[in-house]
Amino acid sequence: MKRKVTLKQIAKELDVSISTVSKSLKDSTEISEDTRLKVQAFAKLYNYKPNNIALSLKNKKTKTIGVIIPEIVHHFFATVISGIEHLANENGYNVMVCLSDESFDKEVINMEMLANGSIDGFILSLSKETQLKRDFHHITEIINQGMPVVMFDRVTNDILCDKVIIDDNLAAFNAVQTLIERGMKKIALITTVDYVSVGKLRTDGYIKALKTNDLKVNNELILKIEDIDNCENLIEDLIKNNKIDAVFAVNELFAVTAIKAASKHNIKVPEEMSVIGFTDGIISKYASPSITTVSQNGIKMGEKAAKMLIERLESDEWDDEQFKTEVIETHLVERESTK
Amino acid sequence: MKRKVTLKQIAKELDVSISTVSKSLKDSTEISEDTRLKVQAFAKLYNYKPNNIALSLKNKKTKTIGVIIPEIVHHFFATVISGIEHLANENGYNVMVCLSDESFDKEVINMEMLANGSIDGFILSLSKETQLKRDFHHITEIINQGMPVVMFDRVTNDILCDKVIIDDNLAAFNAVQTLIERGMKKIALITTVDYVSVGKLRTDGYIKALKTNDLKVNNELILKIEDIDNCENLIEDLIKNNKIDAVFAVNELFAVTAIKAASKHNIKVPEEMSVIGFTDGIISKYASPSITTVSQNGIKMGEKAAKMLIERLESDEWDDEQFKTEVIETHLVERESTK
Repeated sequence: MKRKVTLKQIAKELDVSISTVSKSLKDSTEISEDTRLKVQAFAKLYNYKPNNIALSLKNKKTKTIGVIIPEIVHHFFATVISGIEHLANENGYNVMVCLSDESFDKEVINMEMLANGSIDGFILSLSKETQLKRDFHHITEIINQGMPVVMFDRVTNDILCDKVIIDDNLAAFNAVQTLIERGMKKIALITTVDYVSVGKLRTDGYIKALKTNDLKVNNELILKIEDIDNCENLIEDLIKNNKIDAVFAVNELFAVTAIKAASKHNIKVPEEMSVIGFTDGIISKYASPSITTVSQNGIKMGEKAAKMLIERLESDEWDDEQFKTEVIETHLVERESTK
Repeated sequence: MKRKVTLKQIAKELDVSISTVSKSLKDSTEISEDTRLKVQAFAKLYNYKPNNIALSLKNKKTKTIGVIIPEIVHHFFATVISGIEHLANENGYNVMVCLSDESFDKEVINMEMLANGSIDGFILSLSKETQLKRDFHHITEIINQGMPVVMFDRVTNDILCDKVIIDDNLAAFNAVQTLIERGMKKIALITTVDYVSVGKLRTDGYIKALKTNDLKVNNELILKIEDIDNCENLIEDLIKNNKIDAVFAVNELFAVTAIKAASKHNIKVPEEMSVIGFTDGIISKYASPSITTVSQNGIKMGEKAAKMLIERLESDEWDDEQFKTEVIETHLVERESTK
């Protein structure tokens, strides 16, 4: 059987990155001529078939939406997919999901694969690595070829397309403001590293709330976590070494880990320390005490993204000037972890 | 633009079920001749393109695996997908995921869509509705056309193919046996309705453990839940109305709901009541008390399923007689909810 050669195989064979292969095949001048020619010759030799989106778009509609998310073991992304499914099915569309697993290369490979005749348009949220590299050529290329893309949650200003976001900065500001209004002053922040766009925005919202209330921003109370799988010791140190009034965490895993650390050191939640998390997932609901949290409304976000994409797909006009960014409302779900 | 007519549109137009359309197009004698001819004529008129898997298999390999799972907001299925992704990527394969959303029709539509040139083979777990209807023609058809299928977790004896399961009966038996050995006698079961294959097997394991130890099987202590979203009151009634020593729950949501109900009625876990759940997910890990649970090892299950499928895809022989059922080992993860 004849097997189609893939971007990945070409990259491996020539010992270059997938991004280099992808750009070389598009004749990008970012890549040296030598490398470009080598990649193109190799691709030709092994009969590499690039996307031909324009052709595929002309020939037929698949009535299928391709979704790319960074990870699946994450309740927020699962709820967004539920929302996409719901709206898509109502409108006669199917949904295919691929995972980038927070990897740039996997994001490029998955887009390449899906765009190759399987789907009519994309809904996607950027991988951490893509945000770190700031390399969006694979997405721009798809859009330039005429396939609509809607980005959600982790978006970038570097790409012109429809987007669905929440106001992460405002949501964080409001959560911290609530803690301050209830008399808490020494408020810690557990957040991600800055290149994760939503983490950075939530960090900014926290700082803004402190400053608005003339509270000092103490860097010792700001914990920026890179590796979510190894956050327990860092969070425990933060909580046991500082007599803090409250914790604001940018996801529910950080929030529940803070509660577990408090319990270990006999700090009572919410009597001695309040906790507000982000993302109204199953952990927040079933933790003891259950966790007060900013609801991101993943279902609504997914529905809105699907609606925007389907409207693009079914509209006869293609007006680049009218890309929209929809902002989904958030609200605080009050539970047992705040007083 | 010319749009491809879908199974769903034909079904809607002729006011018959998707299954009827699918079977009629395959000329199944299960469907009346009148209906068959009507469906076939309509499909021809609207230029319906059925799968031509044999042709697509002959022409090229996509190096892509299609996965169909019943739901995404479920930690177990998410871990299986992580396992599939890991093994598939290592072997140069990509993965596309579709959700049946526990619906038979969506399972049929998704298989139709994916089989149409997007993938080389399937990994799937049956929807609840498919198990209830016991209608597997869509899967048999795919296999008969020469596309390999590996089933996991929710499988059926009615289909001959490779399968990956755990020994649900034995795992449940061992969990309940552990409770009995620690002196508990009045042990309640929170399970699913019987048509969910794994629920039934776990129920059987519970009953076997009681009988092996000469304990009476009391139907008042067996709660079979159909609608997982509305289980709270039923579980609360079970726990407050019976002074029980222990609960064995067939998933982690039932287990944590039992713990919440006990807490509400001031029953101390594990001092007055022990709880063992099933599926080592994030709820079990982060609940307070954390929950002792049967680990299903979803990652390993996914890896094994992907390995079996890739071996089929890359083997030159096609030997129907050698379908295998692999049994993944389970073990009890001891946490705070048992004494």
